[in-house]
Amino acid sequence: NRIHSIAVIPGDGIGKEVVPEGLRVLEAAAKRYGFELKAEEHAFASCDYYLKHGAMMPEDWKERVSGRDAIFFGAVGWPDTVPDHISLWGSLIQFRREFDQYVNLRPVRLMPGVPSPLAGRQPGDIDFYVVRENTEGEYSSIGGRMFPGTEREVVIQETVMSRVGVDRILAYAFDLARSRPKKHLTSATKSNGISITMPYWDERVEAMAANYPDVRWDKYHIDILVAHFVLNPDRFDVVVGSNLFGDILSDLGPACTGTIGIAPSGNINPEGRFPSLFEPVHGSAPDIAGQALANPVGQIWSAAMMLEHLGETEAAAGIVAAIETVLAEPSLRTRDLGGRASTSECGRAVAEAL
Amino acid sequence: NRIHSIAVIPGDGIGKEVVPEGLRVLEAAAKRYGFELKAEEHAFASCDYYLKHGAMMPEDWKERVSGRDAIFFGAVGWPDTVPDHISLWGSLIQFRREFDQYVNLRPVRLMPGVPSPLAGRQPGDIDFYVVRENTEGEYSSIGGRMFPGTEREVVIQETVMSRVGVDRILAYAFDLARSRPKKHLTSATKSNGISITMPYWDERVEAMAANYPDVRWDKYHIDILVAHFVLNPDRFDVVVGSNLFGDILSDLGPACTGTIGIAPSGNINPEGRFPSLFEPVHGSAPDIAGQALANPVGQIWSAAMMLEHLGETEAAAGIVAAIETVLAEPSLRTRDLGGRASTSECGRAVAEAL
Ligand SMILES: CC(C)[C@H](C(=O)O)[C@@H](O)C(=O)O
Ligand SMILES: CC(C)[C@H](C(=O)O)[C@@H](O)C(=O)O
Repeated sequence: NRIHSIAVIPGDGIGKEVVPEGLRVLEAAAKRYGFELKAEEHAFASCDYYLKHGAMMPEDWKERVSGRDAIFFGAVGWPDTVPDHISLWGSLIQFRREFDQYVNLRPVRLMPGVPSPLAGRQPGDIDFYVVRENTEGEYSSIGGRMFPGTEREVVIQETVMSRVGVDRILAYAFDLARSRPKKHLTSATKSNGISITMPYWDERVEAMAANYPDVRWDKYHIDILVAHFVLNPDRFDVVVGSNLFGDILSDLGPACTGTIGIAPSGNINPEGRFPSLFEPVHGSAPDIAGQALANPVGQIWSAAMMLEHLGETEAAAGIVAAIETVLAEPSLRTRDLGGRASTSECGRAVAEAL
Repeated sequence: NRIHSIAVIPGDGIGKEVVPEGLRVLEAAAKRYGFELKAEEHAFASCDYYLKHGAMMPEDWKERVSGRDAIFFGAVGWPDTVPDHISLWGSLIQFRREFDQYVNLRPVRLMPGVPSPLAGRQPGDIDFYVVRENTEGEYSSIGGRMFPGTEREVVIQETVMSRVGVDRILAYAFDLARSRPKKHLTSATKSNGISITMPYWDERVEAMAANYPDVRWDKYHIDILVAHFVLNPDRFDVVVGSNLFGDILSDLGPACTGTIGIAPSGNINPEGRFPSLFEPVHGSAPDIAGQALANPVGQIWSAAMMLEHLGETEAAAGIVAAIETVLAEPSLRTRDLGGRASTSECGRAVAEAL
């Protein structure tokens, strides 16, 4: 029997509501496709934990998680009690850095039954990946404040790009593009305005492209690129961007396909030296938490990405197909998609469709 | 007679095609509304000029322009011959910095006759302003490269925010919000990821808001904000952001209203110590340059913003009304909007509608 051992971290808010649905579907998939799942749940990486312990995670968090094959993650953040930059930097961003999950992979796909806010777009029209650099760039921890509290106050933060960091994400993105029928890569830049790091990014894209003569590539400044996401989303196949640009594009893409409520993501260490982490793109959504309103599809789709990563290709495809079946049926959708199902009704429907 | 003296800088590419249409409409407005226009055209701030002189602008550019009441600007950039970060930093960004045009003001409005890519949105549904900080932030000139050409290469660029810089753009945005019926301000942030400068931005927003108890305000992280632009564009009234975030939002907004081809902008020094600069949001568009395909409406609408700034409120409103008349008539639109008019046919139509 194939055994996969995973760490489960629900986090805050709707994370605690959608993770159980993800697990439900994972268990159904295990039965159906003949693998075994060993799941251990953790209460850390949550604002509740922070309020009790004064830190988002225990000191030995790495040992407690690093032996696992993957991390199944909900959502972190409860800004009323803990500022976001504390809760996120003490949890999610720690995982990404310490486990060198340098790829953030996010599919953008228009699904049947989910109306796009874009006029006249059909399932099949929008189907691409955003590949986001996930460890450096604009998300730096270097900088500070001078003359605090005075009129002369100045605040500085450094964007840091390294050859190693840029090249490895570009190689991953070009490899992914090569594996797809269209073999097309788009690079997000802003070298006309961000005049030091971004021209460097462009330079490395050009150098990397030389290794992939079979991949067609282009680049757009981020301002016009977001415009094209709305005006010409069918133009894209694989879009690669820095930490910040990838973040922006991977929320905008799912919005163009109707909702970020169903979008999944993988924080991947491709070499497998550390466990990879799978989480929905949406956050902890304090405004709807605790009301059984949350859409569990983003979490469930993340489970499929996790299984794909663990080599359970068939099970992954099975879950995605089950999601499509459920989304096509209005009564099984949650309210954000015009349905009436609760979080767990929707989750159960996907498990049954499997 | 009221006399306005303006510096005209067509720049590159379609800038040279749309600026004459803007001037045509300005002259028609001068006749109709009884003011006089003294326009002096400059060939600098173009890539042609750079190729001849080795610099984007002459050394005495400031003296040559600073006595003017305003600058009427086309578009700069011709990446095949001059890299964008050289052409832009040597021209447009110089103006913004040296003339302390710290406000970049960009209306986002769905116009009759221009189909929105968003399903079911009508004129009137989308009508807001993006207020962008225009002199500091992510567009810094501090940073550099270490270990160049090696595997250890590291590139660093600093984001710089000052109390003065942040507070004055927030005050401008809150003032603008206060002057509008909805009195609603939205701040773009990313304090959960960009953990030094963005929490500072949030802090100053909160402090500034205390001075405007009559303005309702909220904030969104930039990733979810771009999603809301697509999903709920009717939610916004005045959106304020840093240099980079404002740049992104002020291309995305116009894309949601159908095209960036018609969007105008003002680079404003509110105190009037230096001339302000008015330009379309679109760039020099090398791909369509020289073919009479360019849409002149962005340039013409920028002329209206300039007149508004110069106190010609009636003329400004007249031009906007003339634009609406022309856009409502399919045969008078340029091809990007499904029409057949050339750049100058469209420009002439607006002048006549005046
Ligand atoms: C051309 C470029 C430097 C510029 C900017 O990013 O400011 C442009 O996109 C704009 O929005 O005016
Ligand atoms: C919560 C936040 C720090 C995070 C990010 O910006 O990386 C989130 O938006 C994401 O995309 O995973």
